[in-house]
Amino acid sequence: MIDIDQIFEGNPRIVARAITQVENGGEGAAALMKAVFPKTGRATVIGITGSPGAGKSSLVDKLAFYYKEKGNKVGIVCIDPSSPFSGGAILGDRIRMATLGLDKNIFIRSMATRGNLGGLSRATVDAVAILDAAGYDKVIVETVGVGQDEVEIVKTADVSVVVLVPGMGDDIQAIKAGIMEIGDVFVINKADREGVLRTQKELEALLSLAHRPDMWMPPIIKTIATENKGIEDLDAAIVSYLEFIAGGGESSARRVSIAKWRLTELVRERLLTDLLSRNGTGERLEDLARKIAEKKMDPYSAVEAILSEPPA
Amino acid sequence: MIDIDQIFEGNPRIVARAITQVENGGEGAAALMKAVFPKTGRATVIGITGSPGAGKSSLVDKLAFYYKEKGNKVGIVCIDPSSPFSGGAILGDRIRMATLGLDKNIFIRSMATRGNLGGLSRATVDAVAILDAAGYDKVIVETVGVGQDEVEIVKTADVSVVVLVPGMGDDIQAIKAGIMEIGDVFVINKADREGVLRTQKELEALLSLAHRPDMWMPPIIKTIATENKGIEDLDAAIVSYLEFIAGGGESSARRVSIAKWRLTELVRERLLTDLLSRNGTGERLEDLARKIAEKKMDPYSAVEAILSEPPA
Repeated sequence: MIDIDQIFEGNPRIVARAITQVENGGEGAAALMKAVFPKTGRATVIGITGSPGAGKSSLVDKLAFYYKEKGNKVGIVCIDPSSPFSGGAILGDRIRMATLGLDKNIFIRSMATRGNLGGLSRATVDAVAILDAAGYDKVIVETVGVGQDEVEIVKTADVSVVVLVPGMGDDIQAIKAGIMEIGDVFVINKADREGVLRTQKELEALLSLAHRPDMWMPPIIKTIATENKGIEDLDAAIVSYLEFIAGGGESSARRVSIAKWRLTELVRERLLTDLLSRNGTGERLEDLARKIAEKKMDPYSAVEAILSEPPA
Repeated sequence: MIDIDQIFEGNPRIVARAITQVENGGEGAAALMKAVFPKTGRATVIGITGSPGAGKSSLVDKLAFYYKEKGNKVGIVCIDPSSPFSGGAILGDRIRMATLGLDKNIFIRSMATRGNLGGLSRATVDAVAILDAAGYDKVIVETVGVGQDEVEIVKTADVSVVVLVPGMGDDIQAIKAGIMEIGDVFVINKADREGVLRTQKELEALLSLAHRPDMWMPPIIKTIATENKGIEDLDAAIVSYLEFIAGGGESSARRVSIAKWRLTELVRERLLTDLLSRNGTGERLEDLARKIAEKKMDPYSAVEAILSEPPA
């Protein structure tokens, strides 16, 4: 059993154990999160996304150190979509965590899904809530990739930062629709590279197309994370956005919409878990999967076969 | 009501309508897929993934034309994770579809999720099955990003192609775990760019680390899609892989594992749909989401509140 008070006191070992518990899901996670919930809502949650190669990890590290120097406690949650396949955090992450983890005011954790039940989004949002309740002032959620799950997670942050690099060429086109919607602040990292002006112009053009006068106009910040350049500008942009949002009614509608998404995710996970925890459902699923693979049954009829069985 | 025979005859308008029906989900989709299922299993399904900027779209287009020239009918299904936010296919996609769609032996379709119910994976797999039943010889599934959903979808293909570009630097490290597992064939596209040799050496090193003597060794193909270079090599690598797999027992275990994943996805979607279709559940969800946003209730208690209500 996890000592909730130790979480509220910010004991990093207990915080880590609590996050493991929410990763595992189930009853224990639910009880824990009910206890943690009332203490949440104080941290600033910063979502950082972008494609592989954009240098997100360096940027996150530098931003975390920047906040720490200003006297903040910083939590970092990394979402690693490759982990479901490798079964754990990857090498680069482990090295990084060993380095950053030496600092007692920085907590870093890599999240992984467990098997096919999904629940990564839910576990990540729970981990952020635990860090929030544990007194971390800033919680940075870093995702690799632009997959749907990752985008959903970033949307639950107070502010979403999208990281680009110069020379994405045609592909700024390909990701523009998603970017438009989730980016509150844009970063062009590796801004010492060729093509930075072109990327900036393209991005500006896209952003102004979507802009309405009463809406926030996402700023574009240039950084060179590896040289620690532009980090202060990024912080200033984040602060401006949070001030803008605090002044309007958008904030409350956004919170309700996030809560609805989160609730739906939880219900979805719970329904499946409940079904699979019934005696024999696992074997039944295996058996039906074999029939589908052998083309003796179609998947939709298999679903009906599973759902028509009365609870044991 | 969709005329199933028109699907089997490969009428593209009816095929398009059938895909819309599986996107919408529900009873209609289930009935349709039950009818389609027996005619599936003939097409070669090729999954192509990689990060934004890798030039996947060009590569897919060129590969599709290559197959067409060889006398095949080709279906292309694009998964666009940005669509949930923009509510539809993006501009670049529409232009591309207008161009490719002029050819009667190429069918191209962009998939989008509808709202929060998820089901993109399920709808995509269903769309592939429809194209298969409609007589398309090759079905190419193209995903942007390396998110978990996208990776799962690519895993259901007969062969998975991972597209990289030179100069990804540190980030080949960051995606290596995921790549190792899903890539049957690797492509280094934009192979006229600087750094191609380094990327190739890094990838070779990673692949040989994971390689076991009895396993397939993923080949690395260099392409310049925009100049139509390397497409034949890519096809040859795909064919080699399919021949290798056909000779072993791995194929059947893989089909069962895919069927299991697919069945679980269907059950998950169905459970949530059933719950939400009950009278009043939508309003109840909205109401509870508001309470969570106002911190009057925690999400886990809200789940219990929803699930404890008896079916109306």
